[in-house]
Amino acid sequence: MTLRNGDAYRKSLRKLRPNVHKWGELIEDVTTHPSTRLHVQSVAASFDAAFDPERAPIFTAISHLTGKAAHRWNTLMRSAEDVLGNARMKRAQFRFSGTCQGATCAGWTGLNALWAVTHEADAELGTGYHARLRDYFREVEEHGYALAGALTDAKGNRAVKAGKQAHADAYLHVTEERPDGIVVRGVKAQICAVAAANEIVVLPGTAYGPEEKAFAVAFAVPRDVEGLTIVETRRPSDTRDEEEGWDSPKIGTITQAWLLFDDVFVPRHRVFLCGEAQYTGRLVSIFSAIYRAAIGACVAGQGDVMIGAALALARANGLSQKTFQEKLTQMAVNNEVTFGVGAGAMLLGKPHPSGVFVPDPLLAHVNKVQVGRLPYETKVIAQDISGGIAETGCLPSFKDFEAPEYGDALRAAAAGAEDGETRARLARLVEWLTIGGGVPGCMHGGGSPDGARLAIKGLVNWEGSVANARRIAGVTGELPEPR
Amino acid sequence: MTLRNGDAYRKSLRKLRPNVHKWGELIEDVTTHPSTRLHVQSVAASFDAAFDPERAPIFTAISHLTGKAAHRWNTLMRSAEDVLGNARMKRAQFRFSGTCQGATCAGWTGLNALWAVTHEADAELGTGYHARLRDYFREVEEHGYALAGALTDAKGNRAVKAGKQAHADAYLHVTEERPDGIVVRGVKAQICAVAAANEIVVLPGTAYGPEEKAFAVAFAVPRDVEGLTIVETRRPSDTRDEEEGWDSPKIGTITQAWLLFDDVFVPRHRVFLCGEAQYTGRLVSIFSAIYRAAIGACVAGQGDVMIGAALALARANGLSQKTFQEKLTQMAVNNEVTFGVGAGAMLLGKPHPSGVFVPDPLLAHVNKVQVGRLPYETKVIAQDISGGIAETGCLPSFKDFEAPEYGDALRAAAAGAEDGETRARLARLVEWLTIGGGVPGCMHGGGSPDGARLAIKGLVNWEGSVANARRIAGVTGELPEPR
Amino acid sequence: MTLRNGDAYRKSLRKLRPNVHKWGELIEDVTTHPSTRLHVQSVAASFDAAFDPERAPIFTAISHLTGKAAHRWNTLMRSAEDVLGNARMKRAQFRFSGTCQGATCAGWTGLNALWAVTHEADAELGTGYHARLRDYFREVEEHGYALAGALTDAKGNRAVKAGKQAHADAYLHVTEERPDGIVVRGVKAQICAVAAANEIVVLPGTAYGPEEKAFAVAFAVPRDVEGLTIVETRRPSDTRDEEEGWDSPKIGTITQAWLLFDDVFVPRHRVFLCGEAQYTGRLVSIFSAIYRAAIGACVAGQGDVMIGAALALARANGLSQKTFQEKLTQMAVNNEVTFGVGAGAMLLGKPHPSGVFVPDPLLAHVNKVQVGRLPYETKVIAQDISGGIAETGCLPSFKDFEAPEYGDALRAAAAGAEDGETRARLARLVEWLTIGGGVPGCMHGGGSPDGARLAIKGLVNWEGSVANARRIAGVTGELPEPR
Amino acid sequence: MTLRNGDAYRKSLRKLRPNVHKWGELIEDVTTHPSTRLHVQSVAASFDAAFDPERAPIFTAISHLTGKAAHRWNTLMRSAEDVLGNARMKRAQFRFSGTCQGATCAGWTGLNALWAVTHEADAELGTGYHARLRDYFREVEEHGYALAGALTDAKGNRAVKAGKQAHADAYLHVTEERPDGIVVRGVKAQICAVAAANEIVVLPGTAYGPEEKAFAVAFAVPRDVEGLTIVETRRPSDTRDEEEGWDSPKIGTITQAWLLFDDVFVPRHRVFLCGEAQYTGRLVSIFSAIYRAAIGACVAGQGDVMIGAALALARANGLSQKTFQEKLTQMAVNNEVTFGVGAGAMLLGKPHPSGVFVPDPLLAHVNKVQVGRLPYETKVIAQDISGGIAETGCLPSFKDFEAPEYGDALRAAAAGAEDGETRARLARLVEWLTIGGGVPGCMHGGGSPDGARLAIKGLVNWEGSVANARRIAGVTGELPEPR
Repeated sequence: MTLRNGDAYRKSLRKLRPNVHKWGELIEDVTTHPSTRLHVQSVAASFDAAFDPERAPIFTAISHLTGKAAHRWNTLMRSAEDVLGNARMKRAQFRFSGTCQGATCAGWTGLNALWAVTHEADAELGTGYHARLRDYFREVEEHGYALAGALTDAKGNRAVKAGKQAHADAYLHVTEERPDGIVVRGVKAQICAVAAANEIVVLPGTAYGPEEKAFAVAFAVPRDVEGLTIVETRRPSDTRDEEEGWDSPKIGTITQAWLLFDDVFVPRHRVFLCGEAQYTGRLVSIFSAIYRAAIGACVAGQGDVMIGAALALARANGLSQKTFQEKLTQMAVNNEVTFGVGAGAMLLGKPHPSGVFVPDPLLAHVNKVQVGRLPYETKVIAQDISGGIAETGCLPSFKDFEAPEYGDALRAAAAGAEDGETRARLARLVEWLTIGGGVPGCMHGGGSPDGARLAIKGLVNWEGSVANARRIAGVTGELPEPR
Repeated sequence: MTLRNGDAYRKSLRKLRPNVHKWGELIEDVTTHPSTRLHVQSVAASFDAAFDPERAPIFTAISHLTGKAAHRWNTLMRSAEDVLGNARMKRAQFRFSGTCQGATCAGWTGLNALWAVTHEADAELGTGYHARLRDYFREVEEHGYALAGALTDAKGNRAVKAGKQAHADAYLHVTEERPDGIVVRGVKAQICAVAAANEIVVLPGTAYGPEEKAFAVAFAVPRDVEGLTIVETRRPSDTRDEEEGWDSPKIGTITQAWLLFDDVFVPRHRVFLCGEAQYTGRLVSIFSAIYRAAIGACVAGQGDVMIGAALALARANGLSQKTFQEKLTQMAVNNEVTFGVGAGAMLLGKPHPSGVFVPDPLLAHVNKVQVGRLPYETKVIAQDISGGIAETGCLPSFKDFEAPEYGDALRAAAAGAEDGETRARLARLVEWLTIGGGVPGCMHGGGSPDGARLAIKGLVNWEGSVANARRIAGVTGELPEPR
Repeated sequence: MTLRNGDAYRKSLRKLRPNVHKWGELIEDVTTHPSTRLHVQSVAASFDAAFDPERAPIFTAISHLTGKAAHRWNTLMRSAEDVLGNARMKRAQFRFSGTCQGATCAGWTGLNALWAVTHEADAELGTGYHARLRDYFREVEEHGYALAGALTDAKGNRAVKAGKQAHADAYLHVTEERPDGIVVRGVKAQICAVAAANEIVVLPGTAYGPEEKAFAVAFAVPRDVEGLTIVETRRPSDTRDEEEGWDSPKIGTITQAWLLFDDVFVPRHRVFLCGEAQYTGRLVSIFSAIYRAAIGACVAGQGDVMIGAALALARANGLSQKTFQEKLTQMAVNNEVTFGVGAGAMLLGKPHPSGVFVPDPLLAHVNKVQVGRLPYETKVIAQDISGGIAETGCLPSFKDFEAPEYGDALRAAAAGAEDGETRARLARLVEWLTIGGGVPGCMHGGGSPDGARLAIKGLVNWEGSVANARRIAGVTGELPEPR
Repeated sequence: MTLRNGDAYRKSLRKLRPNVHKWGELIEDVTTHPSTRLHVQSVAASFDAAFDPERAPIFTAISHLTGKAAHRWNTLMRSAEDVLGNARMKRAQFRFSGTCQGATCAGWTGLNALWAVTHEADAELGTGYHARLRDYFREVEEHGYALAGALTDAKGNRAVKAGKQAHADAYLHVTEERPDGIVVRGVKAQICAVAAANEIVVLPGTAYGPEEKAFAVAFAVPRDVEGLTIVETRRPSDTRDEEEGWDSPKIGTITQAWLLFDDVFVPRHRVFLCGEAQYTGRLVSIFSAIYRAAIGACVAGQGDVMIGAALALARANGLSQKTFQEKLTQMAVNNEVTFGVGAGAMLLGKPHPSGVFVPDPLLAHVNKVQVGRLPYETKVIAQDISGGIAETGCLPSFKDFEAPEYGDALRAAAAGAEDGETRARLARLVEWLTIGGGVPGCMHGGGSPDGARLAIKGLVNWEGSVANARRIAGVTGELPEPR
């Protein structure tokens, strides 16, 4: 099938066994439940884009397996341009829905990172993972899957290693190896887009040592696999999604979930690493390089919407663009810095012998650091431009605007250079983008800025800089670290 | 009575006519309704503080009228120390409830600013406002009122003056002057703490010209005055306040409202300005000087709680203070800068001939600019320290933690160095402080940073600096502005 | 000849007519005069690099004209990789000498920009500029020229257009067109590396309108052309270059000059634009795109040396890297952001029909904005790490260290974990990099950040962002700019 | 005498034995030598101010000893207003000369800090230091001394304690105690204003432990005391002070020196601490509180001149204030933040039982952190506004402007909306303020920002914040630091 539209995608989700919960209840149909339908809706739009001549070049790419057009997130990234295609798709998605789509991101990136690592493992250890992965990749493409990617474990006590945790399930691990497959249990936490995904690609969330083999496991499962309980998380103001009216936009949303693996069986052909702890560091490193090269595009795309929302609201307030031009330009600069550093990581990247393209890790991690600061500044500027009405707690509810007794008075009072509903809708959009349900997990999503700084520390050539400084200063001593 | 406790305060609120609405419905009792009770609860704690020997020095002061102890927010601020007392009380309130209390702030500040302006008007015009205000101040003190202060008008089209608006009610104005009083109509928007107040002090929100006399009006009304309809606004995640469990803290909250004045009658003895447009600029200026000198204490107090929440969560995650010391210190620096610049404004302030103390306006406005940036940086750092669980959309709902089928598994998975409930509660606190209902209106509350910058431009001695530079550089020309 | 070494380059400079002045005096030999020799020395090192197998790939490239290896700055940049080669060379140069080399930058970039514009002019107007430029490019390559590039005019009154200036020479202009060439006069100011160049490529510094044809002129002249008087500028602490000892490093330096064109004749074959005002905007735009894509590499390279100098001094003070790791990492992040955004501009660039590659202008201008801020933060951190000795005015002169009476006592007193001379040399390097002669013109060199912001304003799709926001918010009105 | 004018002050300096060196040579007369005369000149202006009715209230104060008017820097600071007077005097001094005066700062602050500490020591140990100090204070006032203050030791290896240094003279110490006095040796480094001082007040630079008694010594000596060799340091572009013309302003300057104490005898009545190591921490702490409360006024005053210089140059360039208003306002905000946080420290300060007033140490240290960042941002903005001519290395020397051959052409070329000399003088002023000899030691002067951060860490109530957060979140566990 390869390319499918949004309806076909929705249909595929409806076929899955219900195992997603929110508010303590089971969600029967993720495509219609108020907590998940907006997320599904925005992912569906990305499927539909394959059939829109204008958007197809962004949302599709040529498959490395079949040479045919496929959904971009079902293909291998083989060049800087392919990773740039990833970034451009993400920016387009954020511009479309104002927020993250998830189901075309981490799972896909995980498969790409596994492409390199299984290639290495097979070459060095004679394992057969790479061929299995190719088969799975083919299945992904043929079915046009939406994919979640699960890396982050529950992690328990952060000062204690995976194998020493009081609560064994704090990290996902293999409990049994059988001839036909493996059994896994444990908790993956804060996993994006599971409700909107057909399949979940599960990877180790960190580098493991030789004594932690049980945690060095990568595989793929259907979202509704037996033994898996999925619990959705809360987002800011998430109950608004379930309400009528304009108190939240109704185009897209993001969802995240905790995955409780209770002795889940994974058949052998879907296992891509099992015990090869020495590859987990590599895997996380390649995953991060790809993921963080593109992450700046996400926040740039949301930043584009913030620019539009703030500027639109300023106009609705009666003020023109030039009043806020310096601030608007700063928002644009922030957007482009995160997009641009990521693009730089791509230009400086290198193809891996397996065929996958790996962006420059130093610039990728540097971008993660930017993503942990610049979008927040952009949000603050958006609130600054928009005025008090959009900041926080400043606008009555949609229900109040509909109240027979005083709703008309409110509408009249909310009017500016545009009518009250227009101002209210735009104010709610700014609120949603800056302090509401549309806020993506810029800070820790895909790993924390402190982790990125640690990686940067490891990648910078400090001694080379010292050597240059010594030479220029005419210092002959070696200048070792003091004891 | 002068000093009353929280129960007496609650009782006084229950006596008021119900005229506060939310969700399109009338709130019968603000002390028990889930949308308002937390706000009332935190204000009640400030009343109770008068009877706690440790807190009484912060929450009470000596009345300028009676020489007796009174609730601090019922007294005139007559010295730098009195304004510092205001700041210290606010910081203590934020430390107590984590958020704004409102009912001990803008109304009080408004009365203090009116103290100066009515004194000037009487001296110059022979009006009798100051004596009326003294009488009202005495009433305030005797009853121990909680006071809202209403300055911000709905404002309509920001490019159009008050008198030229398409919708006349965009600015509150006098529609009739009678021998016994005046009739006012129009909308005050985003007014804090009305639901927790006994009385509302209404002031002009900006400086008016001679052709805008109808808008130059200041007065006080009971919260339940005839003709006044109050509509509460939404805050981020405000429905959580109405839920059971820990998805929001249940100690305090902030509320804001839109006030629809539909031909409200105000008796003459409660009118403090009516038509004297030439004093509105002064009034706003003195109000801002007092308000903005103290505003840094609010954000510092919330910042203190953010420090505590982030540090507590880090420990619950298993990490020690030293891991994040540089970030924690930066949070503390941000807190103290806003507190300190405000204190500086007090030291540089001057007593007004009427007896009220007016902080230095330049430093007060500078502090507003800081308050529009530093607390946001502090929030970002709090999220950075806390980890993904507190950032956004990362934790299942309380209801899910209680779910029979998987609640225990969630609790186990959420545990770190402390149990799962502890981590969940702390994560929710960080969320509430940084992206939830606890976020105060730092940016535009009490006026926007851009307005403050405009005021700063007017207060700085630019030509003096040019003269110094010319002298030092040895430049003899006058260096006027180029044509 | 194509590739020549540093000695051959020095020899070529010595053949030029002396027309460079400093301190009111004529410099007889720029290769030995204390004001210019260090600049020549560092450029010479770039020539020598062509013969060093390790550095040759960075400092040479394949000529588009001859297919042979040439000095990189004598070749056309035809791909993102070629522009990246430019960036890498600049970073290597800064790492080598700690500062700007100039003579391998603006002139070269000017020729590349002219390559596109002359191609367009010829196609549209039938002029023969492109062929002339090819011939000149060939000459440049054959002789292995070092090239200055002169864009910035003296500019006079900034509020007045070029043709309306009180002082006609404020902008370089054509005073006479002859059959065999043109005569030009006027002043180019703050031109880098003239003293170290064989030739000067002269371009318009801004976009001109049809009434300003006389200023729309581009050409190349030998540095010693008749009628040209060159006056070197002062740099911070520049007299130290002329002193013995370690009070400034003696490896490289930067020079800038004012060029007084007093009716200079330029033969026709070296004229590349003359009166075609409609191409000046394009020319400046393409120049900026290339120049600003690479400028981040310059500041990154200097930042690398700052890292090394600060870290070396910290060690000499007795403190280890980990004491300052967070600050060092921030320095590295700043370096990589400017390098990375530039690289991003390259990846997003496009080849021009003429064959030259033009980086993305939006990201290039965004990088200029970063370059106007981040390196300054890096300098501040370098001083912070280094301690008071390197900050400003904290170390006695080399002469004092040599004083018989107390020099030994000073050396002993200056010792830390390393001897006194080592600390003094490193402190002087930090001072030179952060507040001395090594500071490059990050702010206004190659145009100001405000100019870049203006260009960004023109390139961002503001209305597209508004349209997205309207759609997501569900706003149907058009939201035009308020009247 | 008490109050003396600038001439009397100069005369007193000329009476001192020459013991100040620069460039390896002895300075015979600091009032005329080109390296020191400008510093003396600006201090002389502060003496003259006592006789100028307009400036006298700033530059004089009432003596605590005699009740008469005295030079402000000869008096005890007994109230917040007195410390504010210190700050206002410093801001006025920087506005006058554009830079630091030194001789009315650290020595004075040292005496104030000693006032408290000697009082404590006498009370607890029965020593007689306080009476001696009162006598010395009286001498200071009677003679109207200019005072240097010497705290910073050479320090040697920063990882090694004072008593364990390889080079014993790295820290000043007592080598002999005699009945009539003590003998000291060692090096004080980077001491400001010694060349312009009559006396030097010497204090321990850090807190010492009981095993470091020899370093716990405080005393005062005449600048020309036997055995003291003074070596001036270099500043950026310091040779310009010795040149004719406008390449540096000729109104004021700063000097710093290294003090080589070679067995200097100090008579008993001028010794204020000797061996009482337990008071050194207190002494440094009180010194810092006073010094850092006022330090923001210094940078604010220089910032005022930067505003004036940038604005003046913008006008000379032909551009009006409104072009740069947002940047100018940011400069003003930076100035006022440092001034204001210091003023806040004063308001929150407390009188010491001895009578001296001690500002709040937390806000004082917070201000030091600001002073290590904000003035640098202000400098960057000044360069941004001023244009390339003022940035670095962009203007020919004064000698070139005087060159017969091309000087007139340069003057014409340098003209903007004002003549060339005016622009050159202003550009040199901006350069001097931002990257030249006028730059004060904001970063490490009076201690480093990192030291201030450490102090802040010690002063913040972290556990109180945790307790508040626990209470608000409803967490019952104690949340101790993880093991």
